[in-house]
Amino acid sequence: MREVLAEAAFQLFMERGFERTTVDDIVARAGVGRRSFFRYFPSKDDAVFPDHESCLADMTAFLDAADDTRDAVDVVLEAAGIVLRMYAANPEFSVQRYRLTRQVPGLRTYELSFVRRYERTFAGYLTRRWADAEDGALRAEVVAAAVVAAHNNGLRAWLRSGGEGDAEASVDHALGLVRRIWGEAGPAGAGGTSDDEVVVMVAPKGAPMWRVIQRVESALRED
Amino acid sequence: MREVLAEAAFQLFMERGFERTTVDDIVARAGVGRRSFFRYFPSKDDAVFPDHESCLADMTAFLDAADDTRDAVDVVLEAAGIVLRMYAANPEFSVQRYRLTRQVPGLRTYELSFVRRYERTFAGYLTRRWADAEDGALRAEVVAAAVVAAHNNGLRAWLRSGGEGDAEASVDHALGLVRRIWGEAGPAGAGGTSDDEVVVMVAPKGAPMWRVIQRVESALRED
Repeated sequence: MREVLAEAAFQLFMERGFERTTVDDIVARAGVGRRSFFRYFPSKDDAVFPDHESCLADMTAFLDAADDTRDAVDVVLEAAGIVLRMYAANPEFSVQRYRLTRQVPGLRTYELSFVRRYERTFAGYLTRRWADAEDGALRAEVVAAAVVAAHNNGLRAWLRSGGEGDAEASVDHALGLVRRIWGEAGPAGAGGTSDDEVVVMVAPKGAPMWRVIQRVESALRED
Repeated sequence: MREVLAEAAFQLFMERGFERTTVDDIVARAGVGRRSFFRYFPSKDDAVFPDHESCLADMTAFLDAADDTRDAVDVVLEAAGIVLRMYAANPEFSVQRYRLTRQVPGLRTYELSFVRRYERTFAGYLTRRWADAEDGALRAEVVAAAVVAAHNNGLRAWLRSGGEGDAEASVDHALGLVRRIWGEAGPAGAGGTSDDEVVVMVAPKGAPMWRVIQRVESALRED
């Protein structure tokens, strides 16, 4: 029933536009009563994003169950993959919804509140993992924001392409930037993490950190 | 008139709560007609945040006028200071509004849309500055998100303290994390940026980047 309503709603939004579609139109199309709609969705906006709530629940469960000996940033990057798979599971719907959301400011605001909830979920997990670290909560919030920004950059590139190509590759590329800066695996993300191994880096004092990291990466590739 | 209305609105929100205050209540308190209210504010929500729109305009003007030879991240960090000064200029109002916003979900959503506009303004500037760099737009979005997250972490710490202490110091501390990672001035933020100078860093291969940066900083302090 929930899916039938969401599908009817979305069809109508695409045919008539979001603003001109009423809940009455939606229930007529779905062949159910008005009360059924509000049993599943608090508002018309919610029917546009029927999966975010369950996706957030899945993500929270994933983070709660994650092994605390794992690199915290890697765990969060993996959790971000849950969102990506929700979009990638239905490219046509995701692309159409992306276009619809661009046109309706209210939907953008609504989507933004979910983005913020994902970010807070990541930050909450990282804050717990870094509870004893200096500025742990600050770092947790900055990393969570960086993960969300990178994820959305990769996702948007894929949505803008009309859902062509590999969504996962697009997002992985974007998240790589965060992994290289913040991940425990170090700049190369290389497997060799014996504590005895060292990297010796020589760089101009004034070089920006990302250029320094690029240099370290290319040095490691030459190994 | 705009300020009188904003002040009347805020007084009533604090006295009666946001939901139970109507626009009619506000104009009665301010001693003006209903139309005057809507001439200045599209909605009740807007009266809670009377300064964000002009703050965004100031920030945009600042970024447009910024010297392109300056470190792009430093320029954005300075632009973030414009928001901070808006809050710090009126600690009591800022603290009360912070508490009100925590209680009214609609206001949080409204505030979030401004946060997102600040972030997009930063990202737009950085994208332009890094137009020729590899993954420039991606990096711009990640850095913009990191700046906003750090700024808000510092600002929130100050608001939660009831506006006691030094807002600028609280935010500067938080932004320092972003500056050290992303700023052109390098990890130490030190003045010596002659291209001949070098830092030699030795660190365990598996060390997370922020620990590496801490080590570089302490090495530079020993100079």
